[in-house]
Amino acid sequence: MNFQHCTIVGIGLLGGSLALDLRRHYPEIIITGIARRQATLDEASLIRHGKELVFNRLSLNLEDAADADLVVLCTPVQTIIQQLAALAKLLKPGAVVTDVGSAKRAVMNAAVTVLPPTVHFIGGHPMAGSDRAGLIFAVPDLFVDASWALCIPPGHEEAAAKLAEVIQTLGAHPVIIDAASHDAIVALTSHLPHVVAAALVKIVLSHEEVMPFLAGGFRDTTRIAAGNPPMWRDIILTNRDQVISALNLMIAELTTWRDVVRSGDAPHLEALLTTACDQREQLNK
Amino acid sequence: MNFQHCTIVGIGLLGGSLALDLRRHYPEIIITGIARRQATLDEASLIRHGKELVFNRLSLNLEDAADADLVVLCTPVQTIIQQLAALAKLLKPGAVVTDVGSAKRAVMNAAVTVLPPTVHFIGGHPMAGSDRAGLIFAVPDLFVDASWALCIPPGHEEAAAKLAEVIQTLGAHPVIIDAASHDAIVALTSHLPHVVAAALVKIVLSHEEVMPFLAGGFRDTTRIAAGNPPMWRDIILTNRDQVISALNLMIAELTTWRDVVRSGDAPHLEALLTTACDQREQLNK
Repeated sequence: MNFQHCTIVGIGLLGGSLALDLRRHYPEIIITGIARRQATLDEASLIRHGKELVFNRLSLNLEDAADADLVVLCTPVQTIIQQLAALAKLLKPGAVVTDVGSAKRAVMNAAVTVLPPTVHFIGGHPMAGSDRAGLIFAVPDLFVDASWALCIPPGHEEAAAKLAEVIQTLGAHPVIIDAASHDAIVALTSHLPHVVAAALVKIVLSHEEVMPFLAGGFRDTTRIAAGNPPMWRDIILTNRDQVISALNLMIAELTTWRDVVRSGDAPHLEALLTTACDQREQLNK
Repeated sequence: MNFQHCTIVGIGLLGGSLALDLRRHYPEIIITGIARRQATLDEASLIRHGKELVFNRLSLNLEDAADADLVVLCTPVQTIIQQLAALAKLLKPGAVVTDVGSAKRAVMNAAVTVLPPTVHFIGGHPMAGSDRAGLIFAVPDLFVDASWALCIPPGHEEAAAKLAEVIQTLGAHPVIIDAASHDAIVALTSHLPHVVAAALVKIVLSHEEVMPFLAGGFRDTTRIAAGNPPMWRDIILTNRDQVISALNLMIAELTTWRDVVRSGDAPHLEALLTTACDQREQLNK
């Protein structure tokens, strides 16, 4: 194993699932869990893999990340940025720090600005999660077959390779990408769908009489709208310019569809539907 | 059983699933299946419930609906309207006709206009289905716990009660509603989500580089976009005014969200997300 002591800051769905997998794949590793609430630590103290406790140490203090050689920040993205500043004074030289935040430019900028050059920050973003938040939903193998974006600042390639090896051991696929490209892409694939699902919920579920008419399609389309509001507020505002661009694209696209429907142009409408159907079917393969 | 001979016109996902359930719940009923393509009839001729064939008779000719006392039209909604005209000359007095179309005003108007008063037309719309089309996806119990909208023209209450009894036997819940209310509601709960999912697919999946970044949330949100394009073209254009209203609501809602994101007003954005989260969580209960 490339790391002897991993500290996970924020032990909810992602942090908890990561801890489960690390304990399973690396029985000898020391895992410290840091959380904001004692109730989370109490819950975490009971989690085992087989007979072994998953967490060797649990703490409410970020200072207890000082002795780790791998720190994984699994907190909301604005919290990550604040915690990087606090960690700057604590971490030992050679420590590798990564995160799982859904917006990467702001995190990379913060890391470059506040961390000493002796600490290796590699931005991370696993394409895994759910609309359920909290340690209670943590599961093994959450990252199997998921892409895991890595943003690697120049000069930190060796640390990134060590981290990528761990990620592959968990069954995920490292995808090396620059922070700006990452943020533009996830604005489309993740942040826009979240806002669209939330907006759809808001205009449809405000009418009591619709309830008997909600079938599986509506449930699927809006499932992600149940995601944790403060976390999503952070993500959206941290990636604000790209989310605005994505929303403008969506508004323009829906306006096109409305105009085609209004025109009654059946072949044009069928062509639009067929393109979308074909593209979506590709994902089922 | 209230009916001795049921003819199902259009034996795809809905018509096929309906036939399976009728055979199971009413072993003595005669079931005729009518389809446009011989290949569908060939496939249908092999379907059994236990040892019994589901279909007693299969035909390519709508004329073979003449001797049924219950006719269920499971074709696309514009086809339903055409078939009502053709059936008008064929059906025996007292026959009950229903459909499963997703837009009800146009169907009810056609029925009232073309059918003789001796035939009972009850508009129907089960809230069941999937993004998969075709007889191959037909399953038993598709309608269990689903709402099944019924539009009952004055004077046809007795026929409607006989039909509702069958629907309840299949495990579904009849919901009596007027056609205009139905069309306004499903524009929001079904037709709008379809267009939104299709528009989202179109702007996101046009970029090859997004592929590694598509997680479960995007798949859920866009699943329905894989639905049958000609069927959806028909539904949308048949319910055109209500779909336009729903799209205008959605465009206005997304514009509000974009403006809040642009303003950077974190409490306002969190309030919007929290409302949507709370409303969506209600559906999980």
